[in-house]
Amino acid sequence: MRLSKEEKAYIAGFLDGDGSIHVRLKPNRTYRYRFQISPAVVFYQSAKEGDHLKWLNKLLGIGYIRKRNDGIVEFIVGDSDSIIALLCNLLPYLRLKKKQAELMLEIIKLRKSVGTAEDFLKIAQKIDLFQNINYSKKRIRNSLEVERTLRKERLLTP
Amino acid sequence: MRLSKEEKAYIAGFLDGDGSIHVRLKPNRTYRYRFQISPAVVFYQSAKEGDHLKWLNKLLGIGYIRKRNDGIVEFIVGDSDSIIALLCNLLPYLRLKKKQAELMLEIIKLRKSVGTAEDFLKIAQKIDLFQNINYSKKRIRNSLEVERTLRKERLLTP
Repeated sequence: MRLSKEEKAYIAGFLDGDGSIHVRLKPNRTYRYRFQISPAVVFYQSAKEGDHLKWLNKLLGIGYIRKRNDGIVEFIVGDSDSIIALLCNLLPYLRLKKKQAELMLEIIKLRKSVGTAEDFLKIAQKIDLFQNINYSKKRIRNSLEVERTLRKERLLTP
Repeated sequence: MRLSKEEKAYIAGFLDGDGSIHVRLKPNRTYRYRFQISPAVVFYQSAKEGDHLKWLNKLLGIGYIRKRNDGIVEFIVGDSDSIIALLCNLLPYLRLKKKQAELMLEIIKLRKSVGTAEDFLKIAQKIDLFQNINYSKKRIRNSLEVERTLRKERLLTP
């Protein structure tokens, strides 16, 4: 991913205006700790402006385009290495979503070194922080559900 | 308004993502041609992110902040000279809203040389074009209302 300073600044502005940096915890029994950590950087546009996201997709060389049923087109960057590359490029220029970007990079780093259920729970607690930064109306504490599940399955020592 | 290339690119990206470039025609009997031409470049944010717009307001040194009742904060640039200065800086970096910016600059230029009701009607027809570019759901033809009024008041020769 080779971007000029102006391209980085433009994309940072566009992400600040109309994008999202978030991590979801999805229950999935096939995973060691029963939850899948699903990070994403997403850009949105109406279907009629979908070409703009295709241009961005091609420029960055990562992620994929998804057309939703409600007429919104999403450009999603979901794999860790691509997210790291993208956010490291944008970080100097991000303003509104700088904290989310830093938290995302921290979570991806932590995920790479998970050794125990305790480590996993710590990541879930970090993911909770997104809701405070993103001013989400839902105040679901993902980490409480993770903790309950890990205890129930005796993966976490009491 | 002295901006670095990166600042111009960032603001262009932010405007492309979450801003608006539009012209309204407001009926106003105190105006020579019975309508006020009201151009605006607007940036939006939730009230909690209002500081970001204050930063932008200060950086650009133009426009003003308005807090709406629904919790949205707007940073509005509404006077012609400020709009010209802003858009000329952003034009090389705008992508999604480049056409709107060019149309806006054209309308502001035409407005400065209005001599007759016919000239005024031509501007109203240009303003109609915004609805096509902005994919507005409302298909109000402002110029038809302007033409009707100008004829009724015998400002426009039949």
